[in-house]
Amino acid sequence: MAEKLTLSLDAMGGDHAPGMVVEGVSFARKRFPNIHFLLFGDEALLKPLVDRYNLHDVCEIRHTPDKIASTDKPSQALRGGRNSSMRLAINAVRDGEAAGVVSAGNTGALMAMAKFVLKTLPGIDRPAIATFLPTERGETLMLDLGANVECSATNLVQFAIMGDAFSRIVSGIDKPSVGLLNVGEEELKGNDEVRDAAAVLKGDSHNLNFHGFVEGTDVLKGTVDIVVTDGFTGNVTLKTIQGTAKLISQFLRQSFASSISAKIGYLFARPALEQLKKRMDPRRYNGAMFLGLNGIAIKSHGGTDALGFASAIGVAVNLITEGFNDRVKDEFARLEAGEEN
Amino acid sequence: MAEKLTLSLDAMGGDHAPGMVVEGVSFARKRFPNIHFLLFGDEALLKPLVDRYNLHDVCEIRHTPDKIASTDKPSQALRGGRNSSMRLAINAVRDGEAAGVVSAGNTGALMAMAKFVLKTLPGIDRPAIATFLPTERGETLMLDLGANVECSATNLVQFAIMGDAFSRIVSGIDKPSVGLLNVGEEELKGNDEVRDAAAVLKGDSHNLNFHGFVEGTDVLKGTVDIVVTDGFTGNVTLKTIQGTAKLISQFLRQSFASSISAKIGYLFARPALEQLKKRMDPRRYNGAMFLGLNGIAIKSHGGTDALGFASAIGVAVNLITEGFNDRVKDEFARLEAGEEN
Repeated sequence: MAEKLTLSLDAMGGDHAPGMVVEGVSFARKRFPNIHFLLFGDEALLKPLVDRYNLHDVCEIRHTPDKIASTDKPSQALRGGRNSSMRLAINAVRDGEAAGVVSAGNTGALMAMAKFVLKTLPGIDRPAIATFLPTERGETLMLDLGANVECSATNLVQFAIMGDAFSRIVSGIDKPSVGLLNVGEEELKGNDEVRDAAAVLKGDSHNLNFHGFVEGTDVLKGTVDIVVTDGFTGNVTLKTIQGTAKLISQFLRQSFASSISAKIGYLFARPALEQLKKRMDPRRYNGAMFLGLNGIAIKSHGGTDALGFASAIGVAVNLITEGFNDRVKDEFARLEAGEEN
Repeated sequence: MAEKLTLSLDAMGGDHAPGMVVEGVSFARKRFPNIHFLLFGDEALLKPLVDRYNLHDVCEIRHTPDKIASTDKPSQALRGGRNSSMRLAINAVRDGEAAGVVSAGNTGALMAMAKFVLKTLPGIDRPAIATFLPTERGETLMLDLGANVECSATNLVQFAIMGDAFSRIVSGIDKPSVGLLNVGEEELKGNDEVRDAAAVLKGDSHNLNFHGFVEGTDVLKGTVDIVVTDGFTGNVTLKTIQGTAKLISQFLRQSFASSISAKIGYLFARPALEQLKKRMDPRRYNGAMFLGLNGIAIKSHGGTDALGFASAIGVAVNLITEGFNDRVKDEFARLEAGEEN
């Protein structure tokens, strides 16, 4: 029973669903032969795919004709999507049928439904959305990216603890460093929330490797392993990074087209530049993890292909087998015990 | 009297002061022959420079041995810098000796002193720091960049009105579009401050061309002429842009060094890439304007050269001759009258 792990998949979520979901399962199966999958979606579409990849022994199709569109508002999805593939895949986690859920569908809808159905972990007031970003030194985890536009100091501390547990498990870093995003001017030491959160994180009632405040320039420098911020700032920061990368690549294209010499240069440098493009590909970094829910829920990027979806399945498996949620709960229990002493 | 405009200059502020300040005056003099300058700083250093550029007829040296270091905290500068070149240059505006002040010195110290000495314009609760950013379409003005870490809806509305007046005068845009920076997820329409500010800006009691909410991706896309945000988000956004540009240029260098073919490509493309580097030069965009003070105060970038300093002088002259502060006051009077009706 414990050996046979079950995951539920929203087979209809994502730009290339359901094809890439089922193909993703075929990739994941090689890495994790003991996993059983519940595929929620349109049976008429799913059955031929499961046939094609010969996945009948690891997959069970749960037919549901409804699906959430990428344009649906979270409130619409909550009200009208009770029989959608996304909702039923989440319900399976709540009902103990599956140990976690993976979807490449509408982020807002997934967050709203997962929060509503699964609730938060004991000790966690609010879930957070986290992602990895490429940096000078490797990768940095950033959270929250928009689940909570207004965060108290307590929320920020909880994000730090969740980010720490996540980074230890998924990145395998022993004592990941945690930075709180703040403004850099000397006279401005940030708002009350950031200052109060820093005071708690500096204390010794937890096991965090707290680095202190970091600035916007530090995010992609890789100054810390984990950048903690409120969902408003995190969302703007993530989208600013995307916008800046887009502007520079546009300027770069214009530069390479600006003279014959530059065009020749481009021809010679093209393979290297294409490597760079892959390195900056948002699909590599846009997948989001929902941390703090009473159940594992992974959001794969909407534009992901089968390999990307398989890697999202891998993250879910990691978090489940390493007992992510239990670790977070233990850390909170320790923190609260520390506060009482 | 009205024809002879006087500006006070902190001649000791900036990495290349006082040389670039005096040379900057020599450039500015050609464009604005009717301006008189008060140079605050060390006479022993300034006199030979004024001699060299033959500026005795347009410059008056006000000797002061003290100066603010770039490492001084704003609180230190306020307490200990009463006889510094920066402080006395600001005092000259308060005392009516000069119509505006320009400094390339310590930003935090300049903001703290200018706020303390000049106070804010009637109707403005808090000043804002603004800068231009390069975009796909040209340039966008963003404010606040860190003068106020916590902003009410009223502060944001005031920033929008100041940004509008500034953009009309300095960029010459007739009806600049104004966007409020917000998160993009559909279900999250931002915090109370942003929502309330949008409600006011959507009203018809003012002359703004309000575009609505914009996201992080819109900042460098040039979706709007003016991006309004609180100082916390603005500071993080600005520094995230800088950090992203730095990471990409580092990745780009690595790509060009990754193979012989790529190295050859670099040689051909170098002139075009150096143009690109200039286009992204933070010195072009890092200069900051302090809006909302009862007096014109311009912060030139600390690393600026004489040409950059001359262009900061040009911005000050523009704002003074176009009556920037009076326009902002009028706009507020109109807004308040509108609210009473």
